[in-house]
Amino acid sequence: MSPTPSFADIADIADLRTACREGRYSGPTGGLLPDHLIANLVVLPRDWAYDFLVYCQRNPKACPLIEILDPGATEPRLSAPGADLRTDLSRYAVYVDGQRRADRLEVRDLWQRDSVAMLIGSSMSFERALARAGVAPSFVWVLRTGIDTVPGGRFHGQLVVTMRCMSPADAVVATQLTSRFVWTHGAPIHIGDPDTIGAKLAAPIWGDPLTRIPDGLVPVFWACGVTPQSAAEAARPPLMITHAPAHGLVTDLLADQYCLP
Amino acid sequence: MSPTPSFADIADIADLRTACREGRYSGPTGGLLPDHLIANLVVLPRDWAYDFLVYCQRNPKACPLIEILDPGATEPRLSAPGADLRTDLSRYAVYVDGQRRADRLEVRDLWQRDSVAMLIGSSMSFERALARAGVAPSFVWVLRTGIDTVPGGRFHGQLVVTMRCMSPADAVVATQLTSRFVWTHGAPIHIGDPDTIGAKLAAPIWGDPLTRIPDGLVPVFWACGVTPQSAAEAARPPLMITHAPAHGLVTDLLADQYCLP
Repeated sequence: MSPTPSFADIADIADLRTACREGRYSGPTGGLLPDHLIANLVVLPRDWAYDFLVYCQRNPKACPLIEILDPGATEPRLSAPGADLRTDLSRYAVYVDGQRRADRLEVRDLWQRDSVAMLIGSSMSFERALARAGVAPSFVWVLRTGIDTVPGGRFHGQLVVTMRCMSPADAVVATQLTSRFVWTHGAPIHIGDPDTIGAKLAAPIWGDPLTRIPDGLVPVFWACGVTPQSAAEAARPPLMITHAPAHGLVTDLLADQYCLP
Repeated sequence: MSPTPSFADIADIADLRTACREGRYSGPTGGLLPDHLIANLVVLPRDWAYDFLVYCQRNPKACPLIEILDPGATEPRLSAPGADLRTDLSRYAVYVDGQRRADRLEVRDLWQRDSVAMLIGSSMSFERALARAGVAPSFVWVLRTGIDTVPGGRFHGQLVVTMRCMSPADAVVATQLTSRFVWTHGAPIHIGDPDTIGAKLAAPIWGDPLTRIPDGLVPVFWACGVTPQSAAEAARPPLMITHAPAHGLVTDLLADQYCLP
């Protein structure tokens, strides 16, 4: 179930996919091939997929859709040609009626004729751009906010954000840079006072609780891919397959291309 | 059926919507309120809408979705709150089984319980940015190309582009500027030789036929909203309502905001 991760063996994207497919790699995917756009996976029955597409379109900063596959299809021909979404992620989360079951290393037996796979750009893909510019902070919080997303069909919920604490000068550079990454959450949704957006510093989804922002730094907030994941869980579809957190698909797309094919 | 256009009476967006609703304005909408994002309209039965959403997602430069309404809904709450899509466009085109019927000034009686209205950003919205920067050419061609779009359900077809002939220096500025307008076709899809993309200069959809590009100018090509319109016509849905060409909805969104709400 949980082979020892082996970063050293992974030279390129073909290696990574083979290692995942053969169950030899089950670790997180951020930073493995840092120029590649990472995508989060959501698989739903077709009837639920319609609602989810509408939800994503209405909340494009939180849910930038990279690719939608035909019902039953397993190969993301546009963003990862040759890959098989049933086996080529390193780890899967499976939800039945909104309840998370045991993680899986492959989901071949769960794929139905009407399973619609959707890939959503991950902000991991702009981390590298921040690092190249010297403005990547050492830690990224994931926080709930008080901002309601726009409902779409059976999907709704509050916006989840990533927070990076930066010098004001770095915040300007980070805003300029990420504005170009429209398929991986794009420009910040807020800069400054966390209370304005109801960001829950005391109870982070990821990271240590905070009582205040460190002196001299400004918090910068980006819409986060946990938003659609959390909306999808709350809607309790009969079956939903996703990447396990931090185990998104490494696509063939390069994050620096800024646009879809 | 065809009241005399009266540009002079239209001071703001409320005026424009009222004039359309009352049948007092039936003219083109480009340039009326030039800071506002203009959206093209496609209305399809829900079953067809799913395919069309997939088609739009797979071809985001040609089909940037601004808003999807719930089945039967008529108010685009996010992009034009208070507007009624059945009456507030200046002129509608109606297609039955892919055949265009007589244009209408309102489509109240055609709206069904399962009618799904979708709004797609129009490149008219970046014309003003080009003009402000002094790089808007005097004429814009609309051309078919030999590039196949990515099919989505029952929708497929070839990419239609706008072409602007510019000095090489202006082409650089136009590329920089339009890159930010991701919801209104964004960056060019091609710069230079029309043959590379199979652009049909000799048989334009709009504009005089050309045998060659004028000396000293470079042609710059952007994906065009005629692409989804043409794919939708070819798919022959039982009923489709759209804006009449050049009569798109003037939204409340400002094109310079570059992002959706």
